[in-house]
Amino acid sequence: MSSTPERTHVRQTAPFRWEDVSLLAYKEDEGTHFKGVTRQVLFPGDSQLPVQWRYFEVAEGGHSTLESHDHVHAVMIVRGEGAVLVGTRIHRLATGDLVYVPARTWHQFRAPAQGPLGFLCLVALERDKPRRPTAEELARLREDPAVASFIRV
Amino acid sequence: MSSTPERTHVRQTAPFRWEDVSLLAYKEDEGTHFKGVTRQVLFPGDSQLPVQWRYFEVAEGGHSTLESHDHVHAVMIVRGEGAVLVGTRIHRLATGDLVYVPARTWHQFRAPAQGPLGFLCLVALERDKPRRPTAEELARLREDPAVASFIRV
Repeated sequence: MSSTPERTHVRQTAPFRWEDVSLLAYKEDEGTHFKGVTRQVLFPGDSQLPVQWRYFEVAEGGHSTLESHDHVHAVMIVRGEGAVLVGTRIHRLATGDLVYVPARTWHQFRAPAQGPLGFLCLVALERDKPRRPTAEELARLREDPAVASFIRV
Repeated sequence: MSSTPERTHVRQTAPFRWEDVSLLAYKEDEGTHFKGVTRQVLFPGDSQLPVQWRYFEVAEGGHSTLESHDHVHAVMIVRGEGAVLVGTRIHRLATGDLVYVPARTWHQFRAPAQGPLGFLCLVALERDKPRRPTAEELARLREDPAVASFIRV
């Protein structure tokens, strides 16, 4: 019988925490462009399945960075509720909802005033770095009053 | 402002059912090698993120096919509990647990006697077909009494 040297089972040790999975800062840099976000890498990806499967949690009142990149996101909300800007549309989100963020599309997740927003997010292992809007792009985004009142930068 | 023609938000309409996501048979063929399993494709994959994100649900007393293939699985249990054989190890599973199924490794998921086992399962979009054990491979698997009593074929 073949042995299975790889780690084949990782227990959830507490709600939305896993055995030997580190609670990481959302991003390496600091700033006011995000607030109250943590990151955990549930599946780091390998040559046979070159994707990263991450769990992000946005604390109440918090938000991810308003950003855009060439790579896409497939997302499932698994804790709480919140909202997301994708392009020029704002979606109210409930637990279990799915979100797809196309390439080169401005997006930002926001937790509600009370309670966290937690979501699974899939990305390609090889991907470009996100970028934030220029002053000009921000002005253009703000032409839409709903978008203007939603975004946090 | 750019339009976002892609579907960017899919609501969960009932527990573990989604807007415009079909409830599918687990496999196209029939047989006794699986029991009480449904499949839903949450993210079909595209050229930029060439993976499929599926939700499988095994009804109480049911099981997936005992099978092996070259591709790998990254799995998260999201409903109920159960157990899985991976290689020669049997893991008891609770909601939130993660499972990794390496390449060319026999595996089978089983729901408990009461209540379903639901899990998210990631696979590469391009992948080989699963195969079932030969009589000889089955005999070898059954040399381990724990494995012998676990597997359903």
